[in-house]
Amino acid sequence: MKIAIAQLNPTIGDIFGNANLILESAKKAAGEGANLLLTPELSLIGYPPRDLLMNPSFIAAAGDKLQQLAQDLPGELAVIVGTAIPNPNAVKAGGKSLFNCAVLLANGSIQKVFNKRLLPTYDVFDEDRYFEPGTQSDFFKLGNIKIGITVCEDVWNNEEFWGKRSYAGEPFLDLVKAGVDLVLNLSASPYAAGKRGVRSAMLQHSVIRSGIPIVYANQVGGNDDIIFDGSSFCINRNGELIQVLASFETDFGVIEYDEAKRDLVDITSQNPTEVKGAPLSFSPQVGDAEIWAALVLGVRDYVRKCGFSKVVLGLSGGIDSALVAAIASYAIGPENVLAVLMPSPYSSDHSVNDALELAKNLGIGMEMLPIADLMKAYDRTLANLFVNTTFGIAEENIQSRIRGNLLMAISNKFGHLLLSTGNKSEMAVGYCTLYGDMNGGLAVISDVPKTRVYSLCQWLNAGGIGKGKDEAEPLDLRSQALPGNESVGAVPPCPPSPYTPIYPPFGKEIIPGNIISKPPSAELKPGQIDQDSLPAYDILDDILERWIENHESVKQIVAAGHDEAVVVRILKLVRQAEFKRRQAPPGLKISDRAFGTGWRMPIAKASFY
Amino acid sequence: MKIAIAQLNPTIGDIFGNANLILESAKKAAGEGANLLLTPELSLIGYPPRDLLMNPSFIAAAGDKLQQLAQDLPGELAVIVGTAIPNPNAVKAGGKSLFNCAVLLANGSIQKVFNKRLLPTYDVFDEDRYFEPGTQSDFFKLGNIKIGITVCEDVWNNEEFWGKRSYAGEPFLDLVKAGVDLVLNLSASPYAAGKRGVRSAMLQHSVIRSGIPIVYANQVGGNDDIIFDGSSFCINRNGELIQVLASFETDFGVIEYDEAKRDLVDITSQNPTEVKGAPLSFSPQVGDAEIWAALVLGVRDYVRKCGFSKVVLGLSGGIDSALVAAIASYAIGPENVLAVLMPSPYSSDHSVNDALELAKNLGIGMEMLPIADLMKAYDRTLANLFVNTTFGIAEENIQSRIRGNLLMAISNKFGHLLLSTGNKSEMAVGYCTLYGDMNGGLAVISDVPKTRVYSLCQWLNAGGIGKGKDEAEPLDLRSQALPGNESVGAVPPCPPSPYTPIYPPFGKEIIPGNIISKPPSAELKPGQIDQDSLPAYDILDDILERWIENHESVKQIVAAGHDEAVVVRILKLVRQAEFKRRQAPPGLKISDRAFGTGWRMPIAKASFY
Repeated sequence: MKIAIAQLNPTIGDIFGNANLILESAKKAAGEGANLLLTPELSLIGYPPRDLLMNPSFIAAAGDKLQQLAQDLPGELAVIVGTAIPNPNAVKAGGKSLFNCAVLLANGSIQKVFNKRLLPTYDVFDEDRYFEPGTQSDFFKLGNIKIGITVCEDVWNNEEFWGKRSYAGEPFLDLVKAGVDLVLNLSASPYAAGKRGVRSAMLQHSVIRSGIPIVYANQVGGNDDIIFDGSSFCINRNGELIQVLASFETDFGVIEYDEAKRDLVDITSQNPTEVKGAPLSFSPQVGDAEIWAALVLGVRDYVRKCGFSKVVLGLSGGIDSALVAAIASYAIGPENVLAVLMPSPYSSDHSVNDALELAKNLGIGMEMLPIADLMKAYDRTLANLFVNTTFGIAEENIQSRIRGNLLMAISNKFGHLLLSTGNKSEMAVGYCTLYGDMNGGLAVISDVPKTRVYSLCQWLNAGGIGKGKDEAEPLDLRSQALPGNESVGAVPPCPPSPYTPIYPPFGKEIIPGNIISKPPSAELKPGQIDQDSLPAYDILDDILERWIENHESVKQIVAAGHDEAVVVRILKLVRQAEFKRRQAPPGLKISDRAFGTGWRMPIAKASFY
Repeated sequence: MKIAIAQLNPTIGDIFGNANLILESAKKAAGEGANLLLTPELSLIGYPPRDLLMNPSFIAAAGDKLQQLAQDLPGELAVIVGTAIPNPNAVKAGGKSLFNCAVLLANGSIQKVFNKRLLPTYDVFDEDRYFEPGTQSDFFKLGNIKIGITVCEDVWNNEEFWGKRSYAGEPFLDLVKAGVDLVLNLSASPYAAGKRGVRSAMLQHSVIRSGIPIVYANQVGGNDDIIFDGSSFCINRNGELIQVLASFETDFGVIEYDEAKRDLVDITSQNPTEVKGAPLSFSPQVGDAEIWAALVLGVRDYVRKCGFSKVVLGLSGGIDSALVAAIASYAIGPENVLAVLMPSPYSSDHSVNDALELAKNLGIGMEMLPIADLMKAYDRTLANLFVNTTFGIAEENIQSRIRGNLLMAISNKFGHLLLSTGNKSEMAVGYCTLYGDMNGGLAVISDVPKTRVYSLCQWLNAGGIGKGKDEAEPLDLRSQALPGNESVGAVPPCPPSPYTPIYPPFGKEIIPGNIISKPPSAELKPGQIDQDSLPAYDILDDILERWIENHESVKQIVAAGHDEAVVVRILKLVRQAEFKRRQAPPGLKISDRAFGTGWRMPIAKASFY
């Protein structure tokens, strides 16, 4: 039996377009002799649909489209589609109105529906808001093969792997007990740095302890702040990753289930275009390459799915806007990127020169709009009101907001999407101007700490893939997770990616060296540098990661070697900046805890550390 | 047995301050001879704490404070406090890490813990994100009286009243079956227009069908976008509201449970300050007075809890900013409100005069900053780039953003909180400028449709309480909800509120008549009026309410008498404005579905109507 995987990039709510993606994949699968096609979670409506699910006419239309799709699909092929369907017992039994489900389409109609049982309701996830959990796991038979169906989170409650339970039930084990030969999973698992390795290691563990192979189909693409990396895979009974689909790109693969061997067998040698290297693995080590690729995809899809073709951004001569300009250039092509230099009397000469050199390196468009005249006009307008006050935050912010206004004027005039360029470190402590440099439709690096901004730029200059932090030895999560299980060999390093369009060329300096080496500065007053107000970025970023991602207490952070006064001052800044973050554009999520839909913090609140 | 109700206004996360509020109420309750004190849901930490709950050191500190509070409380008094406590079985059983609970404190220690069973996860609520549901309802005995405990949502799943279930369990009925004499409820039930009447009608229904009286203690105060109205009450076995605490203010009440009668008995005649009129009811009819009071409280608390004392806002001469200025004046005193007029060459003379008259009527501070000079400076700066383009949205928005920049400069310079003044109708269709008039720390009327803005201003001018829409006959929800139950009399109209500080004085025109009567205009180009771009506001608001709050389809909206082309155009505008709303300040919620924490819509998505 041949099983095809369609690693799709759906657009939220575009049930017509998404149905076409499924249909095209089905034709391809049928053409390659597949018996079954697996698509990602909610493949018909896109993940996460959020409050679109509360629109009854949307649910009805998705239902109609599903019926239509069943009729349109190649008759010889069984197809598993993800969608949301009404819960008929909601009113009577007191449940949520929908199920998140996998639907088996075959022979022109809906054959069977499998409801997702484990509904993530943490971080960016709100599934309890919309969905009723399924009560049992089920399978279907294709020929003699019993195929168990799971949806995303259903396979994440592996108590042995994690050392704790996250839900009462464990659907994978239930299916094993039910005697399935194979488990399929429809996923929309968001990217976070290093998550690919964790994902595969966890499922390798599940497969090894059960002896049941798995085919895992993940969504790919950016949807607002969330990036889905794809990276779908197949694991045979030995726990080997025998097929891995592309990361950060749509992809398609076919795998054989060998009934005699009762196992998945790699047939990519017959499909040379699908070879991604074997044996395969994902390194859980976080490399610059994967973060780069995620950000490029996030920008590319946000621009495209919002209906834009060009972007504009302010180029200050600093490292943050330099990195964003580079990402944008690779995401949508340098010819579609307009950089605007807006020097003030406080801008250094080298800033303008560095920015010009960068624009030239990237081949992006460039405009220069000096703001001294506007600064004077604000001074004149506010002179009476501000008489006898001294230059301070108000005057600094005016400059940033002049730039924000000019960029939005260009955005409005020419229909370019404005990208904002602030990093996670400054978003955390509020070292940014609301309605100024925070302006934009998408905050490209707002989940990237400043130290990572540096390493990404160095990696870029060193030639991209295979260089810089990517050379680090990968952690072998499996050897920790599977004590005593010697059948699993060491995880080899992440193979070089063949997906060149998203990656930079080798051996060319992109970011001018001076942008990387000079002390970072907002240049809003003479001689200003970031470290006048903030601790060194390596210290700041370590404190922030411990507080934001690791939920450590002040005591724990201090015990890790930080000065208590510094820690308390930083955490106070984090608290005070909440009102700014609430009004920030969506920011591409690359960490386990980003400021955004997964960060829900009150603004009006007492200090607590 | 005497039961005291502390209708508290906690600050999120301020466990020290909130514990003091509980302690003060306990001393007062003891002084009045009460045996038991009831406080609202999560009274120790404030509702909604959101992701503060994910901070383990915060939970630990709340636990310590609860122990301390148990020791500090008057020995003779039992006190029920709401807080979050760890779920000891979370890791083993796969549950969420916390319980939302009511804790009985007496004799210096924790006597019993009651876990909330029904966890709302809709609209603004995310309780499944943090809490494990309790598995059973329980009671405690005080003397001979069996007292059942419920927390907020626990009493909302009244299948008979709603005609449907929202959860599998019905804790109120379980307690009745367990033979309790009385049910207490700790609530943090957010305000929405008309909700007070629904809340009391539902619980009157529950009481009448069970014969068990209820004491309902609700939180009061504004916490970011959510306003809690208080309006705590007691219902005797006959379903009569025999005591009602203040709406939109902190309050304290004492009620007698008469063991012989097995019923609650009003003893307010012995406590004349607590008399709120009897028999009492809440009108489910939405009056301007209650919306006004909610908005005043929302502004007052946001300003106070964020640590501000003064506000600034732009006064255009239009009705939206006029209403916001009036609300702010009543919320924090006119001496703490600074209005800034920023006329452009497109501003009409009457706009300036109207704004000046309004500022005078209110007695607020006023500054004038004409923006013509700044507009010219932008024109000069952008001249080369914008050559051969025509005046359009870009130029209109520049004006709005100049004003936004000036207001933020004043906010930064003098430490005033900037209030934004956009209404719900324009937030819905995007008839507002991001980084311009949308600027602010709080969007005061962003959940108030334009038609309601008019009625609030007219109500204000007519003298406030008892006038305008408040004269309408209240709906009698109970007569619909309780067919055949003749023991419940007609609901009398809502009594005049005695809480004058929050309400305007009688008989004085506040909003100059011309502001109400002139056609609304953004005045961003010559002769512009809103209805150049939008349908009449009564049509627009009806379409929006049907789409946003009632989840109607285009077909249904058209069937209600609207032109299909208009409907589709409006819904397209709503979709396109999502990116603006994502970056809007928190807006005070007064409807069942506000743009804000309860509105979770993707930005990058396909059209769907």
